[in-house]
Amino acid sequence: MEYFTCISLKEAKQLLMNALAGRIVASEPVSLDEAFERIAAEDIVSKEDLPPFSRSTVDGFAVRSADTFGASEGVPALFDIVSEVAMGQETCVQLQPGQAVTIPTGGMLPAGADAVVMLEHAERPDNNSLLVLKAAAPGENVVLKGEDISKGHCILRQGQQILPQDIGALAACGFEKVPVRRKPNVAIISTGDELVNVACTPVNGQVRDINSYALAAMLAEAGCLVRRYGIVQDQYEELRTAVSQAILQSDLVVISGGSSVGARDHTVKVIQELGNQDVLFHGMAVKPGKPTIFGMIGKVPVFGLPGHPVAAMTVCGQIVKPAVQALLGQKSGNVYTIPARLTRNMASVPGRDDFIRVRLVKKANEYRAEPILGKSGLISTMAMADGIVHIPADKGGLYSEEIVQVNLITKP
Amino acid sequence: MEYFTCISLKEAKQLLMNALAGRIVASEPVSLDEAFERIAAEDIVSKEDLPPFSRSTVDGFAVRSADTFGASEGVPALFDIVSEVAMGQETCVQLQPGQAVTIPTGGMLPAGADAVVMLEHAERPDNNSLLVLKAAAPGENVVLKGEDISKGHCILRQGQQILPQDIGALAACGFEKVPVRRKPNVAIISTGDELVNVACTPVNGQVRDINSYALAAMLAEAGCLVRRYGIVQDQYEELRTAVSQAILQSDLVVISGGSSVGARDHTVKVIQELGNQDVLFHGMAVKPGKPTIFGMIGKVPVFGLPGHPVAAMTVCGQIVKPAVQALLGQKSGNVYTIPARLTRNMASVPGRDDFIRVRLVKKANEYRAEPILGKSGLISTMAMADGIVHIPADKGGLYSEEIVQVNLITKP
Repeated sequence: MEYFTCISLKEAKQLLMNALAGRIVASEPVSLDEAFERIAAEDIVSKEDLPPFSRSTVDGFAVRSADTFGASEGVPALFDIVSEVAMGQETCVQLQPGQAVTIPTGGMLPAGADAVVMLEHAERPDNNSLLVLKAAAPGENVVLKGEDISKGHCILRQGQQILPQDIGALAACGFEKVPVRRKPNVAIISTGDELVNVACTPVNGQVRDINSYALAAMLAEAGCLVRRYGIVQDQYEELRTAVSQAILQSDLVVISGGSSVGARDHTVKVIQELGNQDVLFHGMAVKPGKPTIFGMIGKVPVFGLPGHPVAAMTVCGQIVKPAVQALLGQKSGNVYTIPARLTRNMASVPGRDDFIRVRLVKKANEYRAEPILGKSGLISTMAMADGIVHIPADKGGLYSEEIVQVNLITKP
Repeated sequence: MEYFTCISLKEAKQLLMNALAGRIVASEPVSLDEAFERIAAEDIVSKEDLPPFSRSTVDGFAVRSADTFGASEGVPALFDIVSEVAMGQETCVQLQPGQAVTIPTGGMLPAGADAVVMLEHAERPDNNSLLVLKAAAPGENVVLKGEDISKGHCILRQGQQILPQDIGALAACGFEKVPVRRKPNVAIISTGDELVNVACTPVNGQVRDINSYALAAMLAEAGCLVRRYGIVQDQYEELRTAVSQAILQSDLVVISGGSSVGARDHTVKVIQELGNQDVLFHGMAVKPGKPTIFGMIGKVPVFGLPGHPVAAMTVCGQIVKPAVQALLGQKSGNVYTIPARLTRNMASVPGRDDFIRVRLVKKANEYRAEPILGKSGLISTMAMADGIVHIPADKGGLYSEEIVQVNLITKP
């Protein structure tokens, strides 16, 4: 299977998105304590003004700012202190010209007041009098009603991932429950006669099942409930039985491929027979990741991933994660990358999307991206990497000293 | 409390690290399925070579590379096919000069072979004969024994966070269980007479408890098991009772502060009395985040955070998260930031560390960082931000068009 017989990554993504259009999983309400990192199922709109009243941001004296204009240390403005606002209590004072009330940080501004004079800009000759030593501007040391979040403001967009600061905004507006997308159930089936469980010591050419663990972690991170279905042999009937069961319990199925041509043929045949239609693609012009298979079995997207760990993880990031986002109705949002200077030429092939692993090294004021060479069968090359650089299909390679954009695979 | 009475962020971090030295939480073994994002409690060293045998990376013919030297389409090299290696099975063939064996991708190389000829570079005139049309270099299409991970190689360093690619490497080397640090138990106590539960409609100057939810999400993300202790009033006895209980059940306690001076005084007094020593600091030259309190009660670090949500979240990121990392023995690793061009001058005060919220906007080939102005009481200014820019204490501000480093608070 040469690259020219494969479809491009762009075409593959388009076929995938078409197949998944309208297949967003159901929503469920969760408590605010459980909403972190979930995907909003609706626009969440504030039903009230925040703050619901104008309040002071300092300890001081609420005044009508106009009464302070012209005040200075030499010529202070004189006020009558007519009341005291206590924290957490409403005030029914209506401030008249020349009047002030003491107010704590967070206290509710009385009607008529539009500024708060800080303690250090005032003197209090007696309990009922106040000398203001500095003019206060309208709105000074005050948060106005609705200044933080106004009634009708959209706090959270449908499809947005909920972060700590969003949790804060939801709490502020009184949302105890939040409608989020149910976590997609994902089945991972490993195939390959050479595979043995992690607990086993491989003998006679066997290797341990790496991919189902690494892919499970990637898909859990993407917001899925992942179930590993264990290892099935490279036999058509066994794979068909496992996939039949998996599609009943899952929103998405990943077959972590045997590397052999036979295993791939079984995957294609199972998808065709159970799905009652041809696979949507079989082979992408992507390195690593060429032997990727995708088809639908009823409503369930089924992926056949390459057997080599680096290829499997690359395709999971490029193809399976976007499918999960589509199921979640997740807005992909901005993808932030780290600019870095490439340390050597990297050849590619026009018409093929290449993904190279790089180590990031900070040098002076910039990062240098050192490509990690090595076969896609070597998990260590992935474990050593800090990020991935994409060489798009329309480029024949990248030059040493060129600035490239690095997609982090470590935590920022 | 003016900034010059406060200690610097750097001093605060130093006091914190000194107080937490040697207080790493215990380790616990978890299964590989649960190890994702946890912190390794030990160096994990491979006990074996990976792969444990030299194997083919393609479907083809294992040969002695020397026998192919000089081969071309015009002058092919002739081989006897003496055997077939099946996937997942050992081979006991000892390859002699002029001999080849068929081998699948992943198949075990027979003794004597050092390269594999791809199907497309060979012709097979009959079942027992092979014509090789292109010379193969030693090691071509082969992964050598131990080439991926060699016996004795450190797969994971103590204190390293476990990512999907590390899960892959652990699976490859047969680690079913991984020793990780126990998740620290964190208590969050909200104080403030003005606070009401999220479920309540605030009346009379009340506000909802934002901070305990937002901080809980931040600390869960940092790897903690968080328990919110609810709201206590600004009364010394009530706070003392809540803190007494929390320190028995927690590795770290956060008191999300009432904004009033009285509430801060109570926090200081509770730490002093229960801890039987003075607080370690009370006030940092940080904006927002000045009224931050830290002390130890026995072995338990206790933080009093500012009441304003943006200040509380900023201090949580700058001070509490590093404390959690210290408890986890976590290597802080690289902090990756996004370079961006600042869109306006931002004044600061020398001697004070400022943290400003910014929105990132991609323009041409670079990001522009637009400061979000607004008081630290406004949670919306945090919810709108994509990242935080640090103005260090030795700078008086940042200039418009300057390149700044943005710490993301969204997902990359």
